[in-house]
Amino acid sequence: MSGQTTALLEQLLGRGRRLIVASNRGPLTFSFDPEAPDGLRCQRGAGGLVTALGELGRHAPITWVAVAANPADRFVAVELARTHLPLRSRPARLRPLARAVRNLLAEAMPDQDVQLRYVDVPDEIYLPHYEVVSNPFLWFLQHQMYALPYGPMVDGALLDAWRTGYRPVNVAVAEAVVEAAGRDRSPVVLLQDYHLYLAAARIRELRPEATILHFTHVPWPPDSVWQVLPLGLLRAICEGLLACDIVGLQTDRYASHFLDTVASFVREARVDRDGRSIRWRNRRVRVRSYPISIDPVGLARFARSAAVEERVARLAERLERAGSPRLIVRADRIEPSKNALRGFLAYEELLERRPDLRETTRFLAVQAPTRTAIPEYAAYAAAVREVVARVNGLADPEEAPIWISDGTDYAMAIAALRLADVVVVNPVVDGMNLVAKEAILVGERDPVIVLSETAGAAEQLADDCLLVAPADVTGTATAIERALAMPRDERRARLRRLRASVREEDIRWWLTRQLRDLIAVRRGQQPPSRRLRDEVRRAEVVVE
Amino acid sequence: MSGQTTALLEQLLGRGRRLIVASNRGPLTFSFDPEAPDGLRCQRGAGGLVTALGELGRHAPITWVAVAANPADRFVAVELARTHLPLRSRPARLRPLARAVRNLLAEAMPDQDVQLRYVDVPDEIYLPHYEVVSNPFLWFLQHQMYALPYGPMVDGALLDAWRTGYRPVNVAVAEAVVEAAGRDRSPVVLLQDYHLYLAAARIRELRPEATILHFTHVPWPPDSVWQVLPLGLLRAICEGLLACDIVGLQTDRYASHFLDTVASFVREARVDRDGRSIRWRNRRVRVRSYPISIDPVGLARFARSAAVEERVARLAERLERAGSPRLIVRADRIEPSKNALRGFLAYEELLERRPDLRETTRFLAVQAPTRTAIPEYAAYAAAVREVVARVNGLADPEEAPIWISDGTDYAMAIAALRLADVVVVNPVVDGMNLVAKEAILVGERDPVIVLSETAGAAEQLADDCLLVAPADVTGTATAIERALAMPRDERRARLRRLRASVREEDIRWWLTRQLRDLIAVRRGQQPPSRRLRDEVRRAEVVVE
Repeated sequence: MSGQTTALLEQLLGRGRRLIVASNRGPLTFSFDPEAPDGLRCQRGAGGLVTALGELGRHAPITWVAVAANPADRFVAVELARTHLPLRSRPARLRPLARAVRNLLAEAMPDQDVQLRYVDVPDEIYLPHYEVVSNPFLWFLQHQMYALPYGPMVDGALLDAWRTGYRPVNVAVAEAVVEAAGRDRSPVVLLQDYHLYLAAARIRELRPEATILHFTHVPWPPDSVWQVLPLGLLRAICEGLLACDIVGLQTDRYASHFLDTVASFVREARVDRDGRSIRWRNRRVRVRSYPISIDPVGLARFARSAAVEERVARLAERLERAGSPRLIVRADRIEPSKNALRGFLAYEELLERRPDLRETTRFLAVQAPTRTAIPEYAAYAAAVREVVARVNGLADPEEAPIWISDGTDYAMAIAALRLADVVVVNPVVDGMNLVAKEAILVGERDPVIVLSETAGAAEQLADDCLLVAPADVTGTATAIERALAMPRDERRARLRRLRASVREEDIRWWLTRQLRDLIAVRRGQQPPSRRLRDEVRRAEVVVE
Repeated sequence: MSGQTTALLEQLLGRGRRLIVASNRGPLTFSFDPEAPDGLRCQRGAGGLVTALGELGRHAPITWVAVAANPADRFVAVELARTHLPLRSRPARLRPLARAVRNLLAEAMPDQDVQLRYVDVPDEIYLPHYEVVSNPFLWFLQHQMYALPYGPMVDGALLDAWRTGYRPVNVAVAEAVVEAAGRDRSPVVLLQDYHLYLAAARIRELRPEATILHFTHVPWPPDSVWQVLPLGLLRAICEGLLACDIVGLQTDRYASHFLDTVASFVREARVDRDGRSIRWRNRRVRVRSYPISIDPVGLARFARSAAVEERVARLAERLERAGSPRLIVRADRIEPSKNALRGFLAYEELLERRPDLRETTRFLAVQAPTRTAIPEYAAYAAAVREVVARVNGLADPEEAPIWISDGTDYAMAIAALRLADVVVVNPVVDGMNLVAKEAILVGERDPVIVLSETAGAAEQLADDCLLVAPADVTGTATAIERALAMPRDERRARLRRLRASVREEDIRWWLTRQLRDLIAVRRGQQPPSRRLRDEVRRAEVVVE
């Protein structure tokens, strides 16, 4: 963060105000641990969101509202709610833990003025919110993961979960935001993601003068995807978001989809597609894209850390033992939207066409299992494993074409991206996809990025990646082949441009564009952020 | 057909010209049968297409080009190719069969000047065309039936089938069309459906002055659905259709989707969305909707036939034995896009909420098994049967809430629609859906139609049906409940308006609008057909 951020925050908030951030999961997750001093442990949330928003605390006072996700969070929630009490007035047996919470916070987010507020909701509200509505329903729908004959099922169970889980959690978060705002009649609120589509509406009821931006991290699909849902649900979601001043999405394409969705399902809304704004209940709602990104400085530091260096050394050794093959890498969770299945099928097709590559390449997949309790995920993982087993056959580990590595080890993922010649990022659909951006920055062998046109990142990176359509197994095989054959000069030239783009449009850029737009909205001006690209260039592949 | 049709055809064709129709399946299907006189049997194709286009032959000379689908068709193809030879110049052993073909034609399409031309393609071309590309690939894609993590798979097998099956069949049909045109430099050609997306381009090469209309009977999904395919395939499909003068689709919505698809994937095309036309290679292509319909006169006749009367009597008796419950009906093939699963789940939810309806209603499903060799269809049928078994439990046949009847018996389907109080037509997505239109015309108990918003028919019938979103199980249950409770006056008023609409916009209307537009195109004028409705009214269901 820079002095610029400080200046923007000062303009936005004025004196003495706190920026309020709300998300489902907080930046810190607590757990009880008898081994830990004071019996409490704290872990910093992973991902760009926490990095980006957490760092805000260095530049302005922040209050972060989140839902307590486990008993330890809930304990902390209660403790934090008492922070106005001096330590000595609490029950003696709780004093050490209260002190521990304070110390953990100071340690996890040093030099930052971040106040955490956990909203304590019981399991009978949280579980339907999280495990029925948010995941899988909204997540599946927005990633177009449903086989339409079977899902979504908008039945009594889902609508119950909506009424008794999703809506109450949203209301509770909204009310915690308003409580955090205290006597401020016009707080500035940043709401995060699909868990909180209804929060803005409740905040607006209680604080009509609030300035609210909601940012959706996942894709916003076209209105035809939403259309299978009942209008009541669609209106609730859209109208929840229309209580914002700015609706933020990852890409221009998603912004257009959002405008179309509102035009289709909220009759009274006046949608100005070209101006990207919506007139709704005498207010103007702006729709903008803010592509999320990474922290180049932090990533560079981590990529040089001992943990990564150690893995790089091990991987380099393994490659040498295998005769120094070229390295194709993917790094993602094993989940249906990431499209590992077609990625491996493409590699299989390529090896059939080019048997020489069986010797001279390896496909290293740093894969993290995820949501294994959900049958769709387990079935998908099994399908992926079957293809891997078929490709590898009875080969010795070093000679097997596909190497699988544990993707929960983030240092391993970064090590693999450092040594990659080709990086395959071929999601069926993806809000943004930060692996592509990480690969561009840490790659040491002038890697070529094979990128799905339907990843949000394609909107920024299309020109210098090799684009593929996500269903195109043959095209993906051809793109990998082309990447392997690309002359070093071209690889370097492409990478140079990609690096410049990722460095410029980094996580600070994501944030400062939002801050600038919020300042404009508060001044009654037109938000300055523009469209990113008119359209994404598509790869020209001729089928005869 | 009326004198109007004759007049239009005369204007369109002028003197001595034949209208050329091409479709994958012909209006007649032949089979060898040792029991039949001369060893050959012939069956008239089912469906509105054959009725509508076949009847054209009463008003103008028609040549119908189709692909020979079995050995008997192929035999006939060869025989028909010799029709210019007098009988006596053929090999003696074939003369009786050649005579038989002529007689069968005269019998199946009496008083009609229809010449059939079967294109004889060997299995190694026909099977990849039909069983790999057309069905399931294009059919699944256009009905949005794929679970995206698993399909479509655009791999070597699919692209091979495209190159060695789909494209050659299209070229063969196109060349047969041109051959049928003979010395006519500007024939009028009506191409049918998704099996023939590439035919127009080849016809245009050989007969630049031809007037070509391609009509797609299945849905045309939004460009985001197509987007998962490689650009090469997308361009081939779009450019194939852009060789037409008119691209016809079932609804205005599909017409908009087609315009968007071309705008997204064919860079050089200039798309005028409002004018619904496309400038492409110095030609103008019009995009129009022609909602297909039924033949009210023919249907009325059939609904009073002995076969239907007999089934009506049987069903009425069975209803009486069951205590004269109200009758909810669905009539369709058991296939994933028809959404029987959610239909039965909705009924189950309704019976749980309203146990009294277990006594006073029955849900009769006239269901035809279809494509049972395709695993997706078999799995879906099993899922449907499981729900039916659960709802019916151990009840006696008459007391079971759900009655299943064999849907290959079309007379039974019409009998059920005659006696229905409520008809459930809730496809996930459907090009048009003629069951809704049939139910409106033949229903004798003032039936209420519960109709999916995503059926093409909704564009014409929305106002007086009860609309449901296809994923909305609870909403479908509520719609059935509302239908059962609707006062007779309202049912009658709605049905009166629906009948007027279906009678006006019947199969002749479908055809004459196309003929009028073709006449205009040939005269260099703007085709007169207009948009049908600005948008489909959506049911307002409030979810709290």
